[in-house]
Amino acid sequence: MDAKEISRAVIGRLPRYFRYLGDLKDQGIERVSSQDLSTIMQVTASQIRQDFNHFGGFGQQGYGYKVLYLYEEIGKILGLDHKHHLIIVSAGNLGQALGKYMNFERRGFIFRGIFDKNPALYGKIINNIAVRPMEQIGAFIKENNIDIAVLTVPRVSAVAVAEMLVFEGVRGIWNFADIDLKMPDRIQVENVHLSDSLMKLSYNVNNSTGIDH
Amino acid sequence: MDAKEISRAVIGRLPRYFRYLGDLKDQGIERVSSQDLSTIMQVTASQIRQDFNHFGGFGQQGYGYKVLYLYEEIGKILGLDHKHHLIIVSAGNLGQALGKYMNFERRGFIFRGIFDKNPALYGKIINNIAVRPMEQIGAFIKENNIDIAVLTVPRVSAVAVAEMLVFEGVRGIWNFADIDLKMPDRIQVENVHLSDSLMKLSYNVNNSTGIDH
Repeated sequence: MDAKEISRAVIGRLPRYFRYLGDLKDQGIERVSSQDLSTIMQVTASQIRQDFNHFGGFGQQGYGYKVLYLYEEIGKILGLDHKHHLIIVSAGNLGQALGKYMNFERRGFIFRGIFDKNPALYGKIINNIAVRPMEQIGAFIKENNIDIAVLTVPRVSAVAVAEMLVFEGVRGIWNFADIDLKMPDRIQVENVHLSDSLMKLSYNVNNSTGIDH
Repeated sequence: MDAKEISRAVIGRLPRYFRYLGDLKDQGIERVSSQDLSTIMQVTASQIRQDFNHFGGFGQQGYGYKVLYLYEEIGKILGLDHKHHLIIVSAGNLGQALGKYMNFERRGFIFRGIFDKNPALYGKIINNIAVRPMEQIGAFIKENNIDIAVLTVPRVSAVAVAEMLVFEGVRGIWNFADIDLKMPDRIQVENVHLSDSLMKLSYNVNNSTGIDH
């Protein structure tokens, strides 16, 4: 299977399937039909079948899908059976919160280091890990096989810091700086635009009639 | 103009237009053609024209768009010329970080209160605002015309807390609990799934060839 053939839209839906299947699994449900999954997820049954066909279909439609099997297979496709070692750059409010918040560990994302250029923060402990100076970042990435960097630097320094991280060997950037990072193709970037999301909410609140349909 | 006629996809692109136009404005650029905007934003020029036509088109194509005018008009459509009063529930790591991180204020989102059920946090100051007990939330929403709540409670309590907030008069929920909240139509919800985004990054890192194209 060539991953490049699978569209971003399909990949974008996989975490959601994974999340809903996790809920079904936790409720002790063993099988689910594409119709039921469709109702829960508010995606058409035909969309679900199409999406799953990219990965071989995951079993007989007539009898429904095995929840645990499907959950585990989608987890493997998402790479959650691999460990990712990540660092956070920098240790401002958002960086510290993401460091503390790491319930991502159960999904295989291991928080290994946090860096800042502000000496006042050096040694501060975030979730058992001391903040290190930025100067140590290159050596740290190589010694600890860091593959993902969480970028929480201000927007103006985002490009320069991202380029440095890539130069030092990082392969994926989870970007919270409010800018669309454009990196070489071999580098994977997920841009999280918190303010875009808040602006959409603003639009919807302003244009809502306040009436249910 | 009936807002309901405008698709979620168009609305979803507005904050991005706003962001890029803000950059052009900050660079002192006065006019931009849809072609140039298309190149910068990596959206087709015809998509841009189609999107803008939902709002009357914003001026003559041949001469390009006036950057400042377009920036301000899109800001108005997004409702950024209105003030929104928001509270954060609860005051865990993410809630505190969002409270401190509020550079959202310049876009009209005013951080007014933060609530938690943990007495150890009562009175703790986050960005000049003291954490209040959950019991005070209903009165606070009414007295302060709170229209948006930022939800950072654990997933298991998200639905119950959201329903309480809506009952007390909140009209929009910016939801960080890792669950798709389903609320009545009159209530606007923006779900931010941080872990979905991280899983997409995991998929892309695992399936990347490490080669540029």
